[in-house]
Amino acid sequence: MRLLTRPYTPAHLTIDPSAEAFVSDPTATFDAPAWRRRLRVAQGQEPADLVLAGGEIVDVFGGDTYQADVAICDGVIAGVGPYPQARDRLDVAGKWICPSFIDAHVHTESALVWLPEFARAVVPHGTGAVVTDPHEIANVAGLSGMEAMRAAARGLPLGIFFTTPSCVPASHWESPGAAFGPAEMAEMLGWPECVGLGELMNFPGVLIGDDDIAAKLAVSAGTRRDGHAPGLVGAALQAYVGAGPGSDHESTTLDEGWEKLRAGQMVMIREGSSARNMAALLPLVTDATYPRCCFCSDDRDVHTLLHDGHIDVTLRQAIALGLDPVRAIRLATWNAADYWRLDGWGAVAPGFRANLVVLDDLHEVHVDMTLHDGKIVARDGAICDGTVAESAIPDNLRDSVHIGPLRLRDLRLAPAAAKVAVGVIPGEIATRLVEIEPEMHDSWAVAAPERELLKLVCVERHHATGRVGVGYVRGFGLRQGALASSIAHDAHNIIAVGADDGDLLLAIMTVAESGGGLAVVANGQVLARLALPVAGILSDRPLPEVAVAYAALEDAARALGSQLPSPFGLLAFMALSVIPEARVTDRGFVHVG
Amino acid sequence: MRLLTRPYTPAHLTIDPSAEAFVSDPTATFDAPAWRRRLRVAQGQEPADLVLAGGEIVDVFGGDTYQADVAICDGVIAGVGPYPQARDRLDVAGKWICPSFIDAHVHTESALVWLPEFARAVVPHGTGAVVTDPHEIANVAGLSGMEAMRAAARGLPLGIFFTTPSCVPASHWESPGAAFGPAEMAEMLGWPECVGLGELMNFPGVLIGDDDIAAKLAVSAGTRRDGHAPGLVGAALQAYVGAGPGSDHESTTLDEGWEKLRAGQMVMIREGSSARNMAALLPLVTDATYPRCCFCSDDRDVHTLLHDGHIDVTLRQAIALGLDPVRAIRLATWNAADYWRLDGWGAVAPGFRANLVVLDDLHEVHVDMTLHDGKIVARDGAICDGTVAESAIPDNLRDSVHIGPLRLRDLRLAPAAAKVAVGVIPGEIATRLVEIEPEMHDSWAVAAPERELLKLVCVERHHATGRVGVGYVRGFGLRQGALASSIAHDAHNIIAVGADDGDLLLAIMTVAESGGGLAVVANGQVLARLALPVAGILSDRPLPEVAVAYAALEDAARALGSQLPSPFGLLAFMALSVIPEARVTDRGFVHVG
Repeated sequence: MRLLTRPYTPAHLTIDPSAEAFVSDPTATFDAPAWRRRLRVAQGQEPADLVLAGGEIVDVFGGDTYQADVAICDGVIAGVGPYPQARDRLDVAGKWICPSFIDAHVHTESALVWLPEFARAVVPHGTGAVVTDPHEIANVAGLSGMEAMRAAARGLPLGIFFTTPSCVPASHWESPGAAFGPAEMAEMLGWPECVGLGELMNFPGVLIGDDDIAAKLAVSAGTRRDGHAPGLVGAALQAYVGAGPGSDHESTTLDEGWEKLRAGQMVMIREGSSARNMAALLPLVTDATYPRCCFCSDDRDVHTLLHDGHIDVTLRQAIALGLDPVRAIRLATWNAADYWRLDGWGAVAPGFRANLVVLDDLHEVHVDMTLHDGKIVARDGAICDGTVAESAIPDNLRDSVHIGPLRLRDLRLAPAAAKVAVGVIPGEIATRLVEIEPEMHDSWAVAAPERELLKLVCVERHHATGRVGVGYVRGFGLRQGALASSIAHDAHNIIAVGADDGDLLLAIMTVAESGGGLAVVANGQVLARLALPVAGILSDRPLPEVAVAYAALEDAARALGSQLPSPFGLLAFMALSVIPEARVTDRGFVHVG
Repeated sequence: MRLLTRPYTPAHLTIDPSAEAFVSDPTATFDAPAWRRRLRVAQGQEPADLVLAGGEIVDVFGGDTYQADVAICDGVIAGVGPYPQARDRLDVAGKWICPSFIDAHVHTESALVWLPEFARAVVPHGTGAVVTDPHEIANVAGLSGMEAMRAAARGLPLGIFFTTPSCVPASHWESPGAAFGPAEMAEMLGWPECVGLGELMNFPGVLIGDDDIAAKLAVSAGTRRDGHAPGLVGAALQAYVGAGPGSDHESTTLDEGWEKLRAGQMVMIREGSSARNMAALLPLVTDATYPRCCFCSDDRDVHTLLHDGHIDVTLRQAIALGLDPVRAIRLATWNAADYWRLDGWGAVAPGFRANLVVLDDLHEVHVDMTLHDGKIVARDGAICDGTVAESAIPDNLRDSVHIGPLRLRDLRLAPAAAKVAVGVIPGEIATRLVEIEPEMHDSWAVAAPERELLKLVCVERHHATGRVGVGYVRGFGLRQGALASSIAHDAHNIIAVGADDGDLLLAIMTVAESGGGLAVVANGQVLARLALPVAGILSDRPLPEVAVAYAALEDAARALGSQLPSPFGLLAFMALSVIPEARVTDRGFVHVG
């Protein structure tokens, strides 16, 4: 307010503690004794719980590093500076202390593991928080599934923030397990852990001013809204961004990223398992633009998480491409926290949560240890014992697979529906609609592996309706047998591909009997399987076990002749009715747009 | 979410408008028809209300400028790009379009005018929004005064955001008109226009963990908290910042600013009328730190506002000192809006409010016109007719001055209280406690202008208690007569200084009878006066009139011998009991610290 031409110190003022305090409504939630203790620790009047001593602080505000101690009290950073007093003191001289990393947009379901196992996998890599859009679970289990996620997230050594799924179901050709509309979204947006609207994938719906979108924008007013608009530019981008989405992770070219940034979007540079945009987008990060960029993984599969890592890999890559390490860390911490308004996250400064990473090497981003709320939770690449409790499958996500009676004749393909096929495009999840001559046997269209024609079957599995869609697919490359999976974006019915109806039936039944999962079958034998009992889409086992089983499934599929780099990865998209041009859902063959 | 290796356009998708819409709770506040119209305007399917055509957009996200049209629809930017269709089209080729400027921290009361007149004064200078801490009005009129401010702010061509005053009264030696504690703060924090906790000046109270501060931190949990900690560094700063204040505008040296920035505070670089910190702090703004800096004025008096300007002057100064103009504008727009979470403010991008400034010259920051919610509200330095309604004094801020019966004998100074004086320090508002030999007459201590000894009188004026404090002041420099003022930080009782008791009494009575104001008296004659009928601290007249009257008051004071650069400016601090070392309040002589 007013000018003081010389600084003055507290000693100048006499405060009378007995003075009239205008306290008319002290709330119960403010922990005044803890606050006072932290004030004393900060001022060196009382020992800290833990002091990280002598490290180089990675200062995301100042953009450099400096040597100081970090004093931690009740899981919060009390002060950064010289702190000789501590109950516990950890010498980190020669190491770097930075905020733990934040994945600004991820679907944890892509890792095929349940939240505790996800935390166990990423925390040793320095990940401190993720903003997750749990729309896979939402498609299976709706709001009840969201509540199970929320419950599972509590107590983990990882901050799990949610965005509320905005596009369930993906289209009206899909049959998800549960509806998830504005009412459910509003409920979820009321959670403190829910930081905004999840990626608004239905951008065509936005552009035409769809009623459903209007309702979803209405319930999310005043929150952050995440965007999803691959390739959208020009006037359509202006319209889309003006409708609300303040961020986007779908840019694949520098021009697209630049246009979105200029339109006001936070650009989330994505390095996922399949979508990798760092090389294309890193030139976007300049002195002028870096505050408007952050990092996300979107989807990280079991292999990538296990063998590469998480945001630490992304940082290494950015630094190798020439980004200053402190700036790279700023993108991975403060920028993400600030955009999502995760107050108390993303910096090594007083009042911030002591969610920290100690690095052995700044340029290599080599994680020595991870701290969560002031406790060491991972060290030397491994989670600390007792940090993550055993996974338990929530009751409402168990036994989610319910199919009607399924007989061989349900898999028959009528000639009228067999004049077109889903045409696989190598290296893409988009497909072509191809016209074909059906292979006939006993008045029914059948698989003809020698002509690259297989059958694609989708079985409704949430409500045991008995609904089955059957069509042809060309280019999947199986010479015999069948694959089945209850991971089938976005409705997660059971999708199967095969050269033989008997094998198809066995593969589907194997998946159903596992409560969801993946299976490879040939000649009436189950060659490989992985149970996914959590909502039919996630394992409850640790990531390394899942990785071994998944590799065995892929090997088995390859042995049956599939030349695809990721046969189950592609199969999971064969029922997704919002990606052009052809799909098979439980409602049959769908020509998309 | 998922990889698309080639962009796709809306044409790829068929959306069936009759599809089942999961609309279970459409809220009433979302204006779907207006939203749809804006979408059409953005996509060039319908003419905009107004297009600013062919200007250079100042892009605060990209950090440069580019040529484009700005299409405005219902007061919001629908799109930035080529927009040939418009109901109204304004050619701004050769000019620059930037977001209107934001003052991140100001007390509008310092300009001595009521809110509408404040808007009339600053809007032609390109100011689009202010974050104001109305603690002067709060001291006089409490929550009812805040509600009057809120009502007066509505409909102005200026965004007025509030922080809730956090330190009323300034100390327990002061007698304000109303209490303003946590309950009142909680009420105000519930307003959409109230963006957080106002400057937490009682930093010594924070450092000792005061109960009152705890209650105020509790009610403001989850909001932004503004700081005020002049000169605070080291462990005390860590403790203070850790308690919550996320910003500070009191840095006066580069080292202090750097330490606060590193501790996580947004550094508000202040250029006020008396406190001017730009030259010292501008070197803080580097490629690494600029996202954590913004501008504020704190206090701008009538002269400075009238003859210099507002944030435009600050920008000119920053640019003259070497800051890139686009970056300077970023600090004055997006950075302030982002820190205070003023969603929809601070950028020229789709979905942002069309609160814009058109500049004739980027480097000179010469404001050609100001737009508010898509309407031109000021042009060529003047507010547009009909834009600001006539000021009306709210009933609850009128007639706020109530003093008890005041007689000459009430102004007598007892010898026991006359052994010390408030010692004016040239150029500072801090004072010294000086020991003196009283000048006696008829058993009472009296003024002795020839010895530089004047009487300082403070009359309680809110509740007619009849309480009067009297003391000596040395160094004020009046040879005869008296000055009185009902602007007396923070409690705003009537403060008067004089060489003669009769003149003192007349000056005080003149102020009281005006319903508050300023007066200069000598030899029983009122030489100059200014009525301040709004809460006793603000005029209801336009700024230029107030400036003329204020200049006349200063001239009159100088004619009586005062050599001070701003006699009423200094007088206003003579009762402020939180600045060292000596003051006179209505409770008498106060030794601070």
